[in-house]
Amino acid sequence: MSTEATEKKPIDFARGLEGVHVATTAISWIDGQNGVLLYRGIPIEEIAKHSNFEETSYLILYGKLPTKQQLEEFDAALKKNREIPDDLLDVIRKFPKDTHSMHVIRTAISFLGGFDPDAEDNTPEANYEKSIKIIAKFPTVVAAASIIRRGLEVIPPDSSLSMAANFLYMMSGEKPTAEEEKIMDTIMILHIEHGMNASTFSSIVTISTLADIYSAITSAIGTLKGPLHGGANERALRMIKEIGTRDNVRQYVENALANKQKIMGFGHRVYKAYDPRAKILRGYAESLSKSRGDMSGIEIAEEIEKIMIEKVGGKGIFPNVDFYSGLVYSHLNIPMEDFTPIFAMARSVGWCAHVMEYLEQNRIFRPRAVYVGSKDAHYVPIDERK
Amino acid sequence: MSTEATEKKPIDFARGLEGVHVATTAISWIDGQNGVLLYRGIPIEEIAKHSNFEETSYLILYGKLPTKQQLEEFDAALKKNREIPDDLLDVIRKFPKDTHSMHVIRTAISFLGGFDPDAEDNTPEANYEKSIKIIAKFPTVVAAASIIRRGLEVIPPDSSLSMAANFLYMMSGEKPTAEEEKIMDTIMILHIEHGMNASTFSSIVTISTLADIYSAITSAIGTLKGPLHGGANERALRMIKEIGTRDNVRQYVENALANKQKIMGFGHRVYKAYDPRAKILRGYAESLSKSRGDMSGIEIAEEIEKIMIEKVGGKGIFPNVDFYSGLVYSHLNIPMEDFTPIFAMARSVGWCAHVMEYLEQNRIFRPRAVYVGSKDAHYVPIDERK
Repeated sequence: MSTEATEKKPIDFARGLEGVHVATTAISWIDGQNGVLLYRGIPIEEIAKHSNFEETSYLILYGKLPTKQQLEEFDAALKKNREIPDDLLDVIRKFPKDTHSMHVIRTAISFLGGFDPDAEDNTPEANYEKSIKIIAKFPTVVAAASIIRRGLEVIPPDSSLSMAANFLYMMSGEKPTAEEEKIMDTIMILHIEHGMNASTFSSIVTISTLADIYSAITSAIGTLKGPLHGGANERALRMIKEIGTRDNVRQYVENALANKQKIMGFGHRVYKAYDPRAKILRGYAESLSKSRGDMSGIEIAEEIEKIMIEKVGGKGIFPNVDFYSGLVYSHLNIPMEDFTPIFAMARSVGWCAHVMEYLEQNRIFRPRAVYVGSKDAHYVPIDERK
Repeated sequence: MSTEATEKKPIDFARGLEGVHVATTAISWIDGQNGVLLYRGIPIEEIAKHSNFEETSYLILYGKLPTKQQLEEFDAALKKNREIPDDLLDVIRKFPKDTHSMHVIRTAISFLGGFDPDAEDNTPEANYEKSIKIIAKFPTVVAAASIIRRGLEVIPPDSSLSMAANFLYMMSGEKPTAEEEKIMDTIMILHIEHGMNASTFSSIVTISTLADIYSAITSAIGTLKGPLHGGANERALRMIKEIGTRDNVRQYVENALANKQKIMGFGHRVYKAYDPRAKILRGYAESLSKSRGDMSGIEIAEEIEKIMIEKVGGKGIFPNVDFYSGLVYSHLNIPMEDFTPIFAMARSVGWCAHVMEYLEQNRIFRPRAVYVGSKDAHYVPIDERK
């Protein structure tokens, strides 16, 4: 037996594992043709309307909506675990201020792994406990990294606040309005989970050696960091700012399409209809823009959307979640550098759920590569090399 | 289109991606049936006999043996980049002394990513430079983590020494003998690369989003940490110590086989013949045991091997590289906690080579999962839940 196939003719295999099944899952379901996203079977619209980040996290992790008592206990556990050690703040302070924020977040979660006495325990019970710790501490890490980068004083978590409100509080020192809290909560819900994407896949590849959940989440953060995965919302917002006024939109879009340039925040691998998350966010982007008395961004965005749907909607290209999230963040005074860390902080719930789900069906990932190199080279003494 | 297949009957797919091709590669070739391992086409026996870690690293990274000048430049670049910042030593000192050493190593390499001004540059040129930095600093990180865990003073790298000799020097404060240096160098060569295993795969999954090479290597370290991947040599050495004397071997092995317990360091996914790396290491384990005047471990190991081959050799179960490496490390006074970090430090060469090779054929990894959950659940108010 050999590990690698060996072929001399052009090789045909599923690049990027497109279409290849790697696991079973009951966490989320996407019907891209019809713009449907279900968390544990429940439509995202119902969840965004009625639930909150804490309850949705419970749903994703445990597979069912919590009873009142279960939710109270879960919420209390999250609140109890929000604090991060001063040693971690010291580590975060060491990074250069202009370093990519995801280096800081990846290192911080990795660092926490070394301090959890249960890190090496891969029982479901231990992993649920560790998931709660990771999810609870993640916003504290993201806010501390942001605050330290901006040269300000770190604001400790406030256990009287919800996850969403506390995050905005730690980012600014000011308690958010009810509207701000609701919008932040919704954005966090919408980013919790989205099937077998690259970062989620990397978390299960790592756990498949029975490493530990911190290693798995660290891999996922590193994978999300790439511009092909996280980061599109930042580029969408930059585009909106670059366009500047509504009157410039048509020409910008037509030029971009003529030159085959990508319009950021449009099109999605799986959604060939309107991304249901974008639909929800668009409403919040509108209402928040009104509250702020600043309609310039949303007007440009909606004009881009209108022209794009007119031009390429027939090809299944619609706004995705990234198109409106950057605009919402900017109205919440969140710096662009923190967009991908916030994505990671919410997605940590989905990652933890996938890690635990994969452990129940665990098989170590050991694919093959197609060998295209030499098989008959030899060591040549250094003086005889060319 | 939907992202997930939906099946109610038992689902058949390649678990662990067994047999699935994920990339093309020209880095190494394994013929497990015949016990063959080639690095860039050259048999591992020739490399172990004639080359050294630096030259082999060049071969793996650049695809060909270096000329004298190329090797001198490469070696000088490695030497120049061995030092690690004091800030990183501070981070390492923060970890509890009893934490799993791989948490420390994973965090340290992640941390370094935040300090490389070229971290986000994914051109081949930049990635070769970063690979050299990672490979050069890795032994310094591993030795510092070991020394700090043992409560000793960190020993800075000595640029007059080879990679292998310098590593042993940083681990002990004493310059190694020529025999010790040669053996360490050989172990490092033998661990540089081994095809598309789980850790290597995780590095290409991470880079596939165009993240950065530090993120990719961090993922690989986390993945190697799992006991199904790294760590077998530690368990093999523990077994040898537990058996205690040669006279106990037959009964131990027969009991283990009767009870279907695994004999550590035997059998390998791909090798159904004698692992060529184990064959090389066995010779060094013998000679080093003689030099040390302590034959107890090697006698037990060789007796285990003899009985195992007698009993199960016909089934293709032979010693693998882990069976003798633990014994060699113990004669080099290397603590067990450092076995997997040393594996990572040598394998970083292979990881970097695979990351760069994958970038040339890049496609983001986005496989599918088979959806087995509900599609018609609804949000239920909290008071109505059971």
